Amino acid sequence: MAVAVTGLAGRSCEACRKGAPPTTEAEIAEYGAQIPEWDIVDRGGIPALERVFPFGNFVAAMEFANRIAELAEEQGHHPALLTEWGRVTVTWWTHKIRDLHVNDFVMAAKTDRAYGEG
Amino acid sequence: MAVAVTGLAGRSCEACRKGAPPTTEAEIAEYGAQIPEWDIVDRGGIPALERVFPFGNFVAAMEFANRIAELAEEQGHHPALLTEWGRVTVTWWTHKIRDLHVNDFVMAAKTDRAYGEG
Repeated sequence: MAVAVTGLAGRSCEACRKGAPPTTEAEIAEYGAQIPEWDIVDRGGIPALERVFPFGNFVAAMEFANRIAELAEEQGHHPALLTEWGRVTVTWWTHKIRDLHVNDFVMAAKTDRAYGEG
Repeated sequence: MAVAVTGLAGRSCEACRKGAPPTTEAEIAEYGAQIPEWDIVDRGGIPALERVFPFGNFVAAMEFANRIAELAEEQGHHPALLTEWGRVTVTWWTHKIRDLHVNDFVMAAKTDRAYGEG
């Protein structure tokens, strides 16, 4: 069953086991349209969603990283968070399937909302 | 003047301006001996000190990242902190000189101490 086009950020992560289906190309196109600022990057042979969020200093960047860490705990799905002076790079992928899962698109949309978008 | 061999972690960062001298090979050998778990890595043509710290979950990793962020604010010298499930990769270099400065070795030693070493 496809996730409704609207409201990706409002969804919860599904339980995800080894063998769960990765997102199809059609799903990537559909969900990706809701998170247009994210790129699909290669992280050691695994596709991942990634976006750089700019901030005015290190403290503000770290505060945002902490908000995303809280979201991750709530949903039981964890990103890579690269915090530097003035920016946070957020990367989502699904460890168990070594691929992209709808959960990653849900978390990317939640990340945008935490940044004040969406 | 050379920094005393003992107590790198107890020192404060010096003010660092553009044109400040990077660490010499002799200094790298001397200070590096006090932080044996750190590697010198290449980050886009800039040498940097880097170490991966393991943790049992994401929350513990994030807590450590926050402790290092506080140290960074206190000293006015900021790292890159890559927080993932079960580990934090800490990278120190000196932005203003695009090289390693004694401050980076001081911060690496303080990072080790924050982890419960040194």
